Amino acid sequence: MAWSHVLPERPVVAVAGATGAVGREMLAVLEQRAFPAERVIALASHRSAGNRIPFAGDELVVEEMTPASFEGVDLALFSAGASVSREMREAVTAAGCVMIDNSSAFRMDDGVPLVVPEVNAGDLVWHSGVVANPNCSTIQMVVVLNALRALAPLKRVVVSTYQAASGAGQAAMDELYGQTGDFLAGRATTPSAFAHRIAFNCIPQIDVFMDDGSTKEEWKMVVETRKILGDVSLGVAVTCVRVPVLRCHSEALAIEFDSPVSVAVAREVLAAAAGVTVLDDPRERLYPMPALLEGTDDCYVGRIRRDESVEHGLQLWIVADQLRKGAALNTVQIAEALCAG
Amino acid sequence: MAWSHVLPERPVVAVAGATGAVGREMLAVLEQRAFPAERVIALASHRSAGNRIPFAGDELVVEEMTPASFEGVDLALFSAGASVSREMREAVTAAGCVMIDNSSAFRMDDGVPLVVPEVNAGDLVWHSGVVANPNCSTIQMVVVLNALRALAPLKRVVVSTYQAASGAGQAAMDELYGQTGDFLAGRATTPSAFAHRIAFNCIPQIDVFMDDGSTKEEWKMVVETRKILGDVSLGVAVTCVRVPVLRCHSEALAIEFDSPVSVAVAREVLAAAAGVTVLDDPRERLYPMPALLEGTDDCYVGRIRRDESVEHGLQLWIVADQLRKGAALNTVQIAEALCAG
Repeated sequence: MAWSHVLPERPVVAVAGATGAVGREMLAVLEQRAFPAERVIALASHRSAGNRIPFAGDELVVEEMTPASFEGVDLALFSAGASVSREMREAVTAAGCVMIDNSSAFRMDDGVPLVVPEVNAGDLVWHSGVVANPNCSTIQMVVVLNALRALAPLKRVVVSTYQAASGAGQAAMDELYGQTGDFLAGRATTPSAFAHRIAFNCIPQIDVFMDDGSTKEEWKMVVETRKILGDVSLGVAVTCVRVPVLRCHSEALAIEFDSPVSVAVAREVLAAAAGVTVLDDPRERLYPMPALLEGTDDCYVGRIRRDESVEHGLQLWIVADQLRKGAALNTVQIAEALCAG
Repeated sequence: MAWSHVLPERPVVAVAGATGAVGREMLAVLEQRAFPAERVIALASHRSAGNRIPFAGDELVVEEMTPASFEGVDLALFSAGASVSREMREAVTAAGCVMIDNSSAFRMDDGVPLVVPEVNAGDLVWHSGVVANPNCSTIQMVVVLNALRALAPLKRVVVSTYQAASGAGQAAMDELYGQTGDFLAGRATTPSAFAHRIAFNCIPQIDVFMDDGSTKEEWKMVVETRKILGDVSLGVAVTCVRVPVLRCHSEALAIEFDSPVSVAVAREVLAAAAGVTVLDDPRERLYPMPALLEGTDDCYVGRIRRDESVEHGLQLWIVADQLRKGAALNTVQIAEALCAG
């Protein structure tokens, strides 16, 4: 049941969840990239309706999201949580509107393409009204893996993440800074957005636990990576950890290939890849770091080196802004690809 | 040229570098474990001489360290940097005193045992006046690997570290808190102890870079692990990262074995291992974290799970206090083992 609606040249765009950290970043990205929207509508819960958000030199008045909100809308960028996406899906697609969903609600559905435009924009042709935006940690990893698999087939990836507060939303970002100030002042701290204190701590749990002892975040990185790369047998071993950083995720990767890959050629291929910037000059102490890269769009790669512990191995380090490429930017890039398609 | 001096029942102990973060912790550990010292002497640089340090209900007056300081001393616990250890080695051993050195100066010397008492206390028999204390990140990993290799031969370990400021000394600990406060207050920050801002950041560089693109800290974890375990062919892939945490190092491990290892049996073996505590109850959100474990002595292990991406794989998460098991405690345990031996 392919999608038969054709997008107009200047689509009407709704941002659903416009007052959250990702929603606000979606509006910023639409504006910065001069997305050719006929009109942009900001939707949120009843609680936020009436709020004003600066946009393109003007203001958007936030409207309450209801099933009727999508009449006359061509593209709806959702970041309002998985349950809201599930509730609204029918109304959105029935209105002839394409939903680009940043939640985990539909990512693993067979009928829903899971898209990182640099990697698998081709999967957009078979959507039937819903396109899913992958998990933030998955996105920055697959952009890099996709570039490298041009050199040799991938066999296995071991990845440890250093994930920022922004992945848990605006309240979590506020909690990180507020709690850190409280901690330094010797005031008692009570975790709310996180399960434990995040100030000066590392929490090896993101999302809920699965029966096999992995977390759902770790499971997402395995299954989403395989779906996006179209490689069901790829070995992916993941540990996801929250660290006291505001909005950039970092990842340490050990990648095993089926045949030889040289560091020099890997560096060249990455430097030439869309959406990737290589920052890798150890003598100058230059490598990707969250403190350097807030607000940037690319996946930054450094610490590229041979992994001597396996036959054909590379190790590297990736940092990307979780709210940009990890969420809002990738969603808008999907919208752009749909319009261009 | 084996060491022929016999330690007296109540040795005279010197702590060299007594005013640093590790030196102070050494004194605390000696006191807490009621180490049977005839006398404890606090040595430091000229600058710190005359300072008073509380010890065992009394005070130690810090003496300036010179080559003559070790006459009449039986055990010298060194944590004053590699160059000081090199300068003093001859004077220490010529005085018939055993040097237990926390620096990297002699760790890879063939004539110097590199010891974690739970793992290779047996190597102490062949020292010739100097015993080396391993790198902090190495210690907590080998305690766990040693327990697990009772189940099946180890093949390869991929480890990513989340290392605390304490590994870079007291000034680095002070910089983390001070700089974080400055950052929150909007004041400019200038890194000094670290190459970059550490507040709300991750720095993928610890120690200097080697020619192969790894850092010296990463190299240490490879070669020290092999030396301590007596396993020169063990594959070890390491990424070392500094995170904004005060004094506990965390590590994410993916371990490959030569034959099957079950999660349940691994958990039992770890729970029974000396120096290891298992904290692993996902339903209760219980796992090791720096915020829980400051000031503790064991290597804490959690997130124990099967790694489905290889034939015989386990993943787990280790946290230990860098100043305790990673440095001061392990040094004092070596001293205890020498006295018992």
